[in-house]
Amino acid sequence: MKTKIEISARHIHLSKDDFFALFNLDQMQVRNYLNSEKGAFASKHTVEIVGPKGRMHNIRVLGPFRDKSQLELAKTDAINLDINAPLELSGSGVGARVRVVGPKGEFIKNIAMIARRHWHISNTLADKLKLSTGKKIKIKIGGERSLIFENVIVRVKPEFNNYLHLDTDEGNAAQINKEAIGEIILK
Amino acid sequence: MKTKIEISARHIHLSKDDFFALFNLDQMQVRNYLNSEKGAFASKHTVEIVGPKGRMHNIRVLGPFRDKSQLELAKTDAINLDINAPLELSGSGVGARVRVVGPKGEFIKNIAMIARRHWHISNTLADKLKLSTGKKIKIKIGGERSLIFENVIVRVKPEFNNYLHLDTDEGNAAQINKEAIGEIILK
Repeated sequence: MKTKIEISARHIHLSKDDFFALFNLDQMQVRNYLNSEKGAFASKHTVEIVGPKGRMHNIRVLGPFRDKSQLELAKTDAINLDINAPLELSGSGVGARVRVVGPKGEFIKNIAMIARRHWHISNTLADKLKLSTGKKIKIKIGGERSLIFENVIVRVKPEFNNYLHLDTDEGNAAQINKEAIGEIILK
Repeated sequence: MKTKIEISARHIHLSKDDFFALFNLDQMQVRNYLNSEKGAFASKHTVEIVGPKGRMHNIRVLGPFRDKSQLELAKTDAINLDINAPLELSGSGVGARVRVVGPKGEFIKNIAMIARRHWHISNTLADKLKLSTGKKIKIKIGGERSLIFENVIVRVKPEFNNYLHLDTDEGNAAQINKEAIGEIILK
């Protein structure tokens, strides 16, 4: 079966407290809603990230607020910044130390991670395929840099549309720019 | 069967003329010889690369001289510089326009490309496996970000040691830092 693939560029999720510390604001302004999850959005706000070896500007803040802030980088980003970011499932709460700078304040927290590739699916599709959160599947991507990603983690939520998420290293290794279609291998 | 994998970071090959233009020198100084090809080396020299959106320092010059200069980037590098570098076999002579800056001079040439993944093998191994230059194989890489790269081009030369070459996007997508072992899948 086929699924849509979406490439996630580096971005940050913020708790309400951390957002206030950086922007001195109580609410985010929505720039555009995301395809992959109902209610999730790219905000109008960006931060700067500072590591021992470099800095990156215009890191997009995604909403809504989360209980805990999380900075998602590609491994290339982490190497460029010289941050030893671990490979983690989104929401694990584990991350490397990084400085986050906003227009009204800054903080240093252990929130930098590299996201494991994962497939967001709705409960409807999960039931149909007899899959549940934490199961692993593979995805085959065609084209000039065709490849098969293994160890893709399934994540199930009612508000998920069916999208497989890769980071920019994975997307570039497969010659995908922003969106593509892949073939799920359930094995 | 297993093979060694080597990750190639961005680097530049130069013709003798182009090297002279950048460094005002006739010969490169060897820093260290490469594992993957007899006589190939990393020189002591580096250049700066400038694209419409950014610049990159400390790009290593590899030797010996080639007939034609070639800048090999990862796609992430090309995006960061805003260079529309094509996916090419090394030596194809096709590349995107880029500015190269050395300590004694600079030039603008169409030399920026992204290398297709490839497997360097000696004639001895090629004969044993009945492979020849241009054939395609697959490589399976294990670990947390396990995957199978398809469309790996075979290249045969007497001076090649057996090494499969990936760029940093591919290496990071597979969680390989510098060297690793992979499993060759023929056909």
